[in-house]
Order: sequence, then C-alpha cells, then structure tokens
Amino acid sequence: MKLKILALETSTEFCSVALCEHDKTIHREVLAIRSHSEILLPMTTEILAEAEWTLQQLDGIAFGSGPGSFTGLRIACGVAQGLAYALDLPVVGISTLEATAERTDRDNVVVALDARMSEIYHAAYQRQNQIWKMISTPTLCSPLRAPSLLGKAWVACGSGFEKYQEELLSVYGDNLQEIRQGLHPHASSIAALAISRFNDGTATTPENAAPVYLRNQVALKENER
Amino acid sequence: MKLKILALETSTEFCSVALCEHDKTIHREVLAIRSHSEILLPMTTEILAEAEWTLQQLDGIAFGSGPGSFTGLRIACGVAQGLAYALDLPVVGISTLEATAERTDRDNVVVALDARMSEIYHAAYQRQNQIWKMISTPTLCSPLRAPSLLGKAWVACGSGFEKYQEELLSVYGDNLQEIRQGLHPHASSIAALAISRFNDGTATTPENAAPVYLRNQVALKENER
Repeated sequence: MKLKILALETSTEFCSVALCEHDKTIHREVLAIRSHSEILLPMTTEILAEAEWTLQQLDGIAFGSGPGSFTGLRIACGVAQGLAYALDLPVVGISTLEATAERTDRDNVVVALDARMSEIYHAAYQRQNQIWKMISTPTLCSPLRAPSLLGKAWVACGSGFEKYQEELLSVYGDNLQEIRQGLHPHASSIAALAISRFNDGTATTPENAAPVYLRNQVALKENER
Repeated sequence: MKLKILALETSTEFCSVALCEHDKTIHREVLAIRSHSEILLPMTTEILAEAEWTLQQLDGIAFGSGPGSFTGLRIACGVAQGLAYALDLPVVGISTLEATAERTDRDNVVVALDARMSEIYHAAYQRQNQIWKMISTPTLCSPLRAPSLLGKAWVACGSGFEKYQEELLSVYGDNLQEIRQGLHPHASSIAALAISRFNDGTATTPENAAPVYLRNQVALKENER
C-alpha cells in the first residue's frame, strides 16, 4: 500500500520536515536560528503546498524520537501527537541514531551524535535485507568509552565523530573504513524508516508516542523547571 | 458569541483538561503518576465524549503557558500546536500564575508557585471589571526576595505559599488576609481566562504558541540534552 507520511525532526539544531509516499520524498530543512516550535508548522504548510497534499490525505505521522535535544524531542513529539490525534492517524517514533545511519548508503554504520557534556549518543547498525539490525544498542557514553566493534568495514557518521574524531579514532583504530561528514538525523530518513513500521502495524496511537532520552531521567527531572 | 474551547494544563504534577462554552465548563484532572504526555489525549477523548462534542466543533485551543515544569509546558504547547494546526484553530496560552489566581473568588491575589531550586514563580493580580490586572509582574525569585505588596487585603495561593509559608509570611506580614491551600493551575481556569482572549482577537496562530519559562534560558539550554 502506498502510504502518505508526514515526518518531523527537531532533535538537533536543524529543523526538517518531509512528506513521503512510497519511494517519492520531498523535504525542507533549515538551521533553526529561531525556535523549532515556530518554524515547524510553517514548514509543514509549505511542503504540503509543494506536494499538493492536504493534511486529510495523510496516512501517518512520524517523528525523530531521540536521543537528542530535550526541548527538540518534546516539540516534535507533542506536535506529532496533536496532529495525529486531530487527524485520527497512527504515529511512529524513529531513532535519530538509526535515521543518521540511514543517510549513508552503506550497510555497516556506527553513529555517534554529540550529547554535550563531553558525551556521545552511540549505536551501530548493520543493514540486512533493507532492515537495520542493531549491532550495538543506543547508549550514552564518553567518546573514549564507546563500545567496541568487530570487523573493519565500518562507516562512521554523526556530529559525535566530528566533535570527538581523535578520541573515537583512538577507540576504533582499524575498524573504520571511512568517516562521513555532515550527516545528522533528517526528516526524510525518518520518513523512509517509518514506512515499514506503518506497513507492518507497529505504529502506535498518538497518546503512546514518546521521546527516547538515554540521558538519566532523574538528572533531567531535576532540571526540568 | 458562544465559543467552544478546549484547554490543556500540564505545568505541574497534575494533568487537567477542560471544555468550556460560555459559562458552562466540564473538566478532568488527575495527579499524573505516568507521563502527562500519555494521559493528556485519553483525557481529552473522555471529556469530549462526556460533552458530546467532536474536535471539529471546537473554536479554539488554550493551554497553560507557564511558568512551570519545563517538560510539562512543552507537552501542552506541542499538543496544542498540533491540534490547532490540524483543526485550523487559534491558540491562546494562559499564564499559570493568573490561572491560579482565577481559582480564588477574590479580587486581590498574590500567587507563588514552587519553582524548585529554592525559588518561586511569583505574581500579584487585582481583578477589575472581571479582568485581572498585573500588580506585580511574573518573576522568579527566592521566597525571601518576593516583591513587596501594598495594602492588607491580599489573598495568597499556590504551591509556593505551601512550601515556603514561613519565609513568605516573614515578607508579607500584615499584607495577607488569608492563605488559600491546595490551589494550582487548572484547565478549567485556563479555559475561563482564554474565552475573552479568543473573543477580543488576541489569540495567536498555532506556530506562534510558545511556553513562558521565566527561568534563565541559558541555564535551560545547557541542560536540555
């Protein structure tokens, strides 16, 4: 079935929106100088106009569920929940780590996203029959404690590899074939990954959509006011 | 005009939802043991069923815009934005301090909400011709530095007066006539206050809806990941 998906991604300093139907995707991305929350909906209006779709034609809402900016994850999740509830649509949250891996055209990908406070969000994936399998589960760690990888054919990507290249090279040495620059989670890869989740029935209801933080929830709670 | 308003309030440990039409209000509130984000939409479904309204009959969405829990404000704002965008409705954010004052039946009200980290969110209001005028603008301060008030006829309310009663009594001494216990921002008072804002055309578009934090934005940004 050809589903029409709207995807929202606000977990980094970029804000992106994509519309996807089968293998056709259109998207917008800006470096969000103003609040993501102010530009997300106008971008959605623009992209719907470009696609000549209405909200009522959508089959599902996807969002980047994290890890990433605490505020950003809440914005995308909240807006996705409100939209999906009002439009009576299912929701899919997609890992920002997996969405970054998806942006490479490779099958063995290690991702590190800058988590600030001298830490990274880390995961490693292997693509098997078009599906990403987790080889190293998403975790928060210091760059020097990044989990080990077997084999030499890894492609690395993400802001963590740009910020902590020296530390991560000291960990991975010969494991890496290449470091891809400039890749971050993007609504277009969120949408692409979400399609199979909508198709296989693992999408959720709007009230069950939730961000994934990785960083200690207690620490977050202490700081939430 | 009799507007139908949905109001969402998640700025404290309580989660409340209200539907309001002119002087008729129905509401639900729970102490949110689970995430506000999980219970807000099911509560909305319940209350719409009770009122026998559909989302499509609504004329506006209101939310508690803060100050309050950082996460909570983002949840209510995001969901309000998504709903209003999908339903093509205006949005009004209502101060949680004013909404707490509204819950008293008095005209001179000083509000202090617990802001954690030994601080309070503080404001004072006077009701004139059914409208709350700010006498002391919303601010973040330590209880012992709460702004001075003139006169003796003040009613105090809010979690700050419960947590820091001794300190605040030392500041206000004879200014207070009474301390009302157990009042916190509630969707029913958010809705009541929002009606005039929808009627006088000061409502906003969904993309311009935003939380109000008071606590230093830089400190929040440092902690947002």
